[in-house]
Amino acid sequence: MKVNGKHYRSLWWNSEKNVLEIIDQRWLPHDFRTQTVGTMEEFADAIVEMRVRGAPLIGATAAYAMALAMKIDPSNAYLEKAWKYFNETRPTAVNLRWALNRCKDALLPLPEDQRADAALKLAHEIADEDVEINAQIGRHGLAIIQGIAINKKPGETINILTHCNAGWLATVDWGTATSPMYHAHNAGIPIHVWVDETRPRNQGALTSWELGSHGVPHTYIVDNAGGHLMQHGKVDLVIVGTDRTTRRGDVCNKIGTYLKALAAHANNVPFYVALPSPTIDWTIANGVADIPIEERSAQETTHVQGIMPDGSIGMVQVTPEGTPGGNPAFDVTPNHLVTGLITERGVTPATAEGLQAMFPEFANVKPAAKNKKTGS
Amino acid sequence: MKVNGKHYRSLWWNSEKNVLEIIDQRWLPHDFRTQTVGTMEEFADAIVEMRVRGAPLIGATAAYAMALAMKIDPSNAYLEKAWKYFNETRPTAVNLRWALNRCKDALLPLPEDQRADAALKLAHEIADEDVEINAQIGRHGLAIIQGIAINKKPGETINILTHCNAGWLATVDWGTATSPMYHAHNAGIPIHVWVDETRPRNQGALTSWELGSHGVPHTYIVDNAGGHLMQHGKVDLVIVGTDRTTRRGDVCNKIGTYLKALAAHANNVPFYVALPSPTIDWTIANGVADIPIEERSAQETTHVQGIMPDGSIGMVQVTPEGTPGGNPAFDVTPNHLVTGLITERGVTPATAEGLQAMFPEFANVKPAAKNKKTGS
Repeated sequence: MKVNGKHYRSLWWNSEKNVLEIIDQRWLPHDFRTQTVGTMEEFADAIVEMRVRGAPLIGATAAYAMALAMKIDPSNAYLEKAWKYFNETRPTAVNLRWALNRCKDALLPLPEDQRADAALKLAHEIADEDVEINAQIGRHGLAIIQGIAINKKPGETINILTHCNAGWLATVDWGTATSPMYHAHNAGIPIHVWVDETRPRNQGALTSWELGSHGVPHTYIVDNAGGHLMQHGKVDLVIVGTDRTTRRGDVCNKIGTYLKALAAHANNVPFYVALPSPTIDWTIANGVADIPIEERSAQETTHVQGIMPDGSIGMVQVTPEGTPGGNPAFDVTPNHLVTGLITERGVTPATAEGLQAMFPEFANVKPAAKNKKTGS
Repeated sequence: MKVNGKHYRSLWWNSEKNVLEIIDQRWLPHDFRTQTVGTMEEFADAIVEMRVRGAPLIGATAAYAMALAMKIDPSNAYLEKAWKYFNETRPTAVNLRWALNRCKDALLPLPEDQRADAALKLAHEIADEDVEINAQIGRHGLAIIQGIAINKKPGETINILTHCNAGWLATVDWGTATSPMYHAHNAGIPIHVWVDETRPRNQGALTSWELGSHGVPHTYIVDNAGGHLMQHGKVDLVIVGTDRTTRRGDVCNKIGTYLKALAAHANNVPFYVALPSPTIDWTIANGVADIPIEERSAQETTHVQGIMPDGSIGMVQVTPEGTPGGNPAFDVTPNHLVTGLITERGVTPATAEGLQAMFPEFANVKPAAKNKKTGS
């Protein structure tokens, strides 16, 4: 999407220098910095240090990393070594492994001298596929927003609430939850977005940066405010992303999503979840019972990062010294609170029947191993 | 309650020096500082600068302020002048006005030479009454906690979630929502408190300080976490305070309370509100419709205060420069989400019938003027 009037993806190939260019997201939302990634170590560092973040973006980055590996040494041994090296950069990132496996499976059967070109081509494909999936999500979500618009006065603003950053920064472009918003804004529909702060990591500040950079009207609110806004008719719909969706449509997303779903349900506000279908876990039905929730560092709750008075990025400690903190990173919204799932194929009810009808190729996947970690 | 093993009230009279002693709460939760308040200007400053905060504490402080005024000059003219002077320190604080009026009404009929002594006696009474009201709330709340304890294994911890700081720091002692917790802890019942951070002003850090200082086990969590904890059986009951309760039991409290009430309701977790009966507004029934909500400075959402790395108290800016923020300070929890109201007279259902049965002297108050501001 746009930054300072110019269109960016979250990564792009520099074919002159044969390097990947990324946005070093650690400086966002305070500073927009791009950098080149041209060595194995730089790729690993980009993922480990969270210069790139968000499942689809990590996946695409990993694909370009494998392309570099094949340029250095296209042997089977090095392919395996690179797979292992990058796989360890973020052990719980499902999309990372998905991309690495896809590259390995595609490259292993090829003669060694074709692997470098094929790997780069595949990385481009994976990046473009992500853009196209998110664009489709945006078109389907746009139809929902248009449906709300026709019940409003001409020119009346549509208020959308979102939680966390399921934005283009976490994907290659468009984002998931934000894609319908960008599509609506680009189509001239007057929207305004309530951006949940999303403590403890304040990803709402990233969403605010994205929306502001692209020119979408928005207001940053604390996570506590959304229920009150819905109660007073100030939210027309909620759109959030998801880290993992079960086969029956339970939605595991950033902590606090569930509270907004409860408030939306209580106030008859439509609650939509935008997701690329690869994030559906067909092996799990009951998300509350069967998705283990990552417990992150207590320091994320007791401290807050931001710009210090001197302009540097730093942290303040909010709590008294020694306060114990608890930090579950995700929660699960049961499917009965979800109005619909916006996928690249269309919008479906959050039910096993709805999802299987839309993705019949997965209808026969059996519920399987429990206790997978969710992380992003 | 206790700080470093010694019992404190949030204010106390120093009869040797004839001054009030207060805790300068602006330094909490990071630093425990007490100070004396001995001039008209110091009293006004204590209230304006929020060295003292919380409706009951502000009311008691105002009563001591009037005692000082009567010592300086017990004339009717000065009584009126002092009333006006202190009334303007925080225009929306209902308890401030209540205490000032009570003093004025009690003092005006007295001969001037009796006013100074009577005013000081009245200030002591107002402070002691607040302590006794909160102690009663604590005893009634203790019975609820004991009722939950008998359904647990012996020695099993009872998990209580609270939001904001309805603690002893906001009252003269015990607090409102915290009073049942302190009573249970003092009675040897093993409790653990989930302390909501309560963005944007992070009053949860004050609650953590209180509980930690008194020795009550607790965990600081972001406001987003409570729904997940309830969903997984980790919360046995919720106890919060309230700024204003309507005649039918709708509860206006710090922003985000409503979201916790929704989550409690959805997960069959009892949701109690602790309140001294003077905070019941008998003129209003429908809190959502008829209580206007204060919109506070956007900077509270875009910035966070805490201890800087150099040990000073400072702020970081969380959002990109220029991000618009929205900051409704309170929300209203409809009475059907409230399990019970814990008052100084006992626990009542949050219904018009329940409240009128417990406070029959107010049964005939007529619903009246709308659009009063809520503030604390």
